[in-house]
Amino acid sequence: MNQLSIIKIGGNIIDSEPQLKKFLSDFSSIKKPKLLIHGGGKTATEMAEKLGVSQVMIDGRRITDAETLKITTMVYAGLVNKQIVALLQAKGVNAIGLSGADMNCILASKRQHPEIDFGFVGDICMDGINVSFLSSLIESNAVPVFCPITHDGKGQLLNTNADTIASTLAVALSKKYEVQLCYCFEKKGVLENIEDEDSVMESISKTKYKDLVEKGMISKGMIAKLDNAFEATAKGVQSVIIGHADNLLQMINKEEHAGTRLFS
Amino acid sequence: MNQLSIIKIGGNIIDSEPQLKKFLSDFSSIKKPKLLIHGGGKTATEMAEKLGVSQVMIDGRRITDAETLKITTMVYAGLVNKQIVALLQAKGVNAIGLSGADMNCILASKRQHPEIDFGFVGDICMDGINVSFLSSLIESNAVPVFCPITHDGKGQLLNTNADTIASTLAVALSKKYEVQLCYCFEKKGVLENIEDEDSVMESISKTKYKDLVEKGMISKGMIAKLDNAFEATAKGVQSVIIGHADNLLQMINKEEHAGTRLFS
Repeated sequence: MNQLSIIKIGGNIIDSEPQLKKFLSDFSSIKKPKLLIHGGGKTATEMAEKLGVSQVMIDGRRITDAETLKITTMVYAGLVNKQIVALLQAKGVNAIGLSGADMNCILASKRQHPEIDFGFVGDICMDGINVSFLSSLIESNAVPVFCPITHDGKGQLLNTNADTIASTLAVALSKKYEVQLCYCFEKKGVLENIEDEDSVMESISKTKYKDLVEKGMISKGMIAKLDNAFEATAKGVQSVIIGHADNLLQMINKEEHAGTRLFS
Repeated sequence: MNQLSIIKIGGNIIDSEPQLKKFLSDFSSIKKPKLLIHGGGKTATEMAEKLGVSQVMIDGRRITDAETLKITTMVYAGLVNKQIVALLQAKGVNAIGLSGADMNCILASKRQHPEIDFGFVGDICMDGINVSFLSSLIESNAVPVFCPITHDGKGQLLNTNADTIASTLAVALSKKYEVQLCYCFEKKGVLENIEDEDSVMESISKTKYKDLVEKGMISKGMIAKLDNAFEATAKGVQSVIIGHADNLLQMINKEEHAGTRLFS
């Protein structure tokens, strides 16, 4: 099987222009086939503020009413996605920006929750990934760049968690590729001691992770991220690693002391 | 040569949800290969107002400073493009939203003007269209949907006139397809008498057009549109027609009394 690197870049990196440019420079130097998923960062929140649209977060998830969906679609699928694509093109990467609606790449359904109305939030459907189109792009040396907007196939756009998109794409594409999934964010990896930024674990098993969660040693935001990442390892993704965006190349090259490797 | 319909839909139609939905319904019923280019409509202007970014227009062209470029990228490439793509997907059309940056589909350069600084406005480069990628999409039954944002290949996004994108795409693709270019807007066609909405001309030659312009019988906004359209006829596009969005199917089927046909 051919190799494929699937890389998720978090919002905090996108918010800083120098950090984003360094990251995209590193990303463009990866020789093997690759795919990028980006979050939205603070721009959507700032835009909502400027437009006077109040934002409600429950457990770190944005409640997406109609106005908020418009804002996230503008910022994620428009501004952030096209800026990243243009910067990658300038570095010789044949990037193509995609939402889940384009070519029906990611089909989702509006979240149904017994108590909370999340609004226009989408959960990805089983077999909802257009693997054949994505493979044809990858075979032609194109580099898909996904924003966290999907659709329901009935004309409705939906806001979908970028970490979940990354793990779902990784699982679907691991049938055709040896997938390396890499979550890049503003921390060096999973910490053994939540108060010591240097206590990065080289690797973590699902058992150890559950243990740390029970002891309250993993932050809430990190739990959502790691649940997605462990989901990918459980469903056949060959390699899953999480760490600082600055260490992207070291993580891709599987060097020591770069990020935390996850295993089932 | 295979046939290809290239359709430009103007801003005023996009601004009205019922009109847009009717148009997309008609568009999706066209059986032959097709490609859509959309303008931005009033949403960008409204968004600029809400965000307190003042807009300067010179001869109907938007001066695009850095803040205005952000707004147009958000609205055109994000909101409008993805909403159209999702609505087409719901009608069984395998739409893919594209800016000029994606796959380097449309390469442009920042406009140089001796007197006016247009800001981040792009003029499409000679041979700037990625014909091979677009043909491969069309051959696979995909339907490209372009927003009027391009890039300069050096990392800069650029705002580009949607009518010009339509005619340039039509000219470039007419080497591989028998292209029918159709400009849809809120008027029935070119009027013989500017004050009589029913004096629609069945067809108009370049000579007759020049004559009407000299007599001041063509409005300024219409001149920009028709210059683009005549450029396409001069450069080998097989059929160019301009008319009301409501008459899309009649124009595509070359019925009488639907739009104005242009010839060199």
